[in-house]
Amino acid sequence: MQTPYAVVDEAVLHANVTRMAAHARTLGLALRPHAKTHKTREIARLQLDAGAIGLTVATIGEAEVFADAGDLFVAYPLWVDAARAARLRAVAEQTVITLGIDSAEGAANLARHLPGATVLVEVDSGHHRTGVAPTMAGDVAAAAADAGLTVRGVFTFPGHAYAAGGRRQAAEDEAGALAAAADSLRGAGFADLVVSGGATPSAEYAGDTLTELRPGVYVFGDAQQWELGACAPDQIAYTVHATVVSHAHGRLVLDSGSKVLGADRAAYASGFGRLLDHPDARVVQLSEHHAVVEGAPRLPLGSIVRVVPNHVCNAVNLVDELVVGERRWAVAARGRNA
Amino acid sequence: MQTPYAVVDEAVLHANVTRMAAHARTLGLALRPHAKTHKTREIARLQLDAGAIGLTVATIGEAEVFADAGDLFVAYPLWVDAARAARLRAVAEQTVITLGIDSAEGAANLARHLPGATVLVEVDSGHHRTGVAPTMAGDVAAAAADAGLTVRGVFTFPGHAYAAGGRRQAAEDEAGALAAAADSLRGAGFADLVVSGGATPSAEYAGDTLTELRPGVYVFGDAQQWELGACAPDQIAYTVHATVVSHAHGRLVLDSGSKVLGADRAAYASGFGRLLDHPDARVVQLSEHHAVVEGAPRLPLGSIVRVVPNHVCNAVNLVDELVVGERRWAVAARGRNA
Repeated sequence: MQTPYAVVDEAVLHANVTRMAAHARTLGLALRPHAKTHKTREIARLQLDAGAIGLTVATIGEAEVFADAGDLFVAYPLWVDAARAARLRAVAEQTVITLGIDSAEGAANLARHLPGATVLVEVDSGHHRTGVAPTMAGDVAAAAADAGLTVRGVFTFPGHAYAAGGRRQAAEDEAGALAAAADSLRGAGFADLVVSGGATPSAEYAGDTLTELRPGVYVFGDAQQWELGACAPDQIAYTVHATVVSHAHGRLVLDSGSKVLGADRAAYASGFGRLLDHPDARVVQLSEHHAVVEGAPRLPLGSIVRVVPNHVCNAVNLVDELVVGERRWAVAARGRNA
Repeated sequence: MQTPYAVVDEAVLHANVTRMAAHARTLGLALRPHAKTHKTREIARLQLDAGAIGLTVATIGEAEVFADAGDLFVAYPLWVDAARAARLRAVAEQTVITLGIDSAEGAANLARHLPGATVLVEVDSGHHRTGVAPTMAGDVAAAAADAGLTVRGVFTFPGHAYAAGGRRQAAEDEAGALAAAADSLRGAGFADLVVSGGATPSAEYAGDTLTELRPGVYVFGDAQQWELGACAPDQIAYTVHATVVSHAHGRLVLDSGSKVLGADRAAYASGFGRLLDHPDARVVQLSEHHAVVEGAPRLPLGSIVRVVPNHVCNAVNLVDELVVGERRWAVAARGRNA
């Protein structure tokens, strides 16, 4: 096997899966991990065996791959047409499935193609991406019910937890937004609500406003979580093994570029990736097949190092398989954007 | 077909292929396009039919896919071991192949595994990634020849052309570095040199110091080239078709995220991508399956728009096929990082 390739440390993976399951259990929350991070059937199975009530996915293509999970939530305001509806109906023959909506218009469109579909209303808790204002959630829920959908509750993604020092505040914002949204639905006559939140960086601070947590990255960890303080380096299960190919300018140049690490670099990131065994090292320059590293010892040419990608969800989506000891796990949902 | 998916405008593609071929011909330079951009056999064939003398690739995996090109250059300082050498020997049975080196140690390692291999010496012309100082190129060439390699010349990648206002200066740096490197080789007794440079943003300013140009992105164009002034919007052949799924916060949210556009955002980029039909629009926020757009008209939910990725090489590597009218072209070298 030649570098660069993706390696999963199975012991660390198991510990991560177990720890988050215990955390959710302690909080009394259902755990519905987001499968977009690993896109791998074997890891989904581990999560379900550890007590997850089902999986979260982002696309219909992911739902198709994980249709045997028993209970899926597509945490996305899909714009459903006839072709998408046909695919969703096929998935629904295999598993319970819930969809996201974030507007009355989206709900009406969904109801036209999939009458009776079960939905959660997405609210914005501070990430400012999709989702309605929490106090408007009841209006969207009422419109959805009027259109013929089955409304089960509310969800949010507190993506602003991905900011230096932002984890606890994002969790508080999430709880506040979901509480307001749930109140808004109760005011519109809905009861027994699913209240779904969660993301790896904020999960530590989740409270009992929620009924369900949807973290994804925790199975692997990555340089972003490391730098946010949401994981320790010994909790990182996913690395790209790379070869030192050059000492140009007295630095290490590795054969792991953006085509295997991903090009993510958040504002708070200290580089384009890190080395697991050299905490002071940073990828300071990244091209498609070159990672230039500073802060590492001068390892000989030909050395193999373990690179921690910044954002593991995008890194996993670049490889066809994961190396797990002597086994290979297929990234079964790689590229399933649609 | 459901969004997001990648579409190639064949007329624009043909015009781009023809224009660069004519440019190289006018300059009297050989054209050896970099196949990493498209990773597609059909497009390689167009380039060769338009007069390219062969292809450039970055990895052994790409060389395997394009082994019928007749003449390949792996523009990378590979660290070759027994397994890689076996793969390279298999490619060499099908095509002429030249490899890159950027150190005496790398040359010695290569010679141990592939005695007699043909190489170009990489020099740094200002991008500061791999490559030796131009005046040291003769020393590396001499060491390579002593180790038993066949040295044919020098190459560089003027990657610092990817900077606002940097294109002409990078081309001048490239010419200066290659001239110095060629002199250094001639001083060490080498003659009849290949002098290989080129990148899409600097190609316009290439001069007769070079014998060969290796641009890649020109076949498609992208938002980076658009913003660098290296292509006009009507020269962009590659777009991701995406659906408007939300109007949250009065903006457009598209279903094309970083898992189909790539997460690239250079310092000079005005956003995470652009809309081909709305030049004032910018992707201002990008997640894995969401692109939040400002500056566009309020297109109805369900509208399909054409998104121009920032860096098309990384975008192409995220999809399995390209939609070309009624046909589908396989991205045959997708994921071939090793």
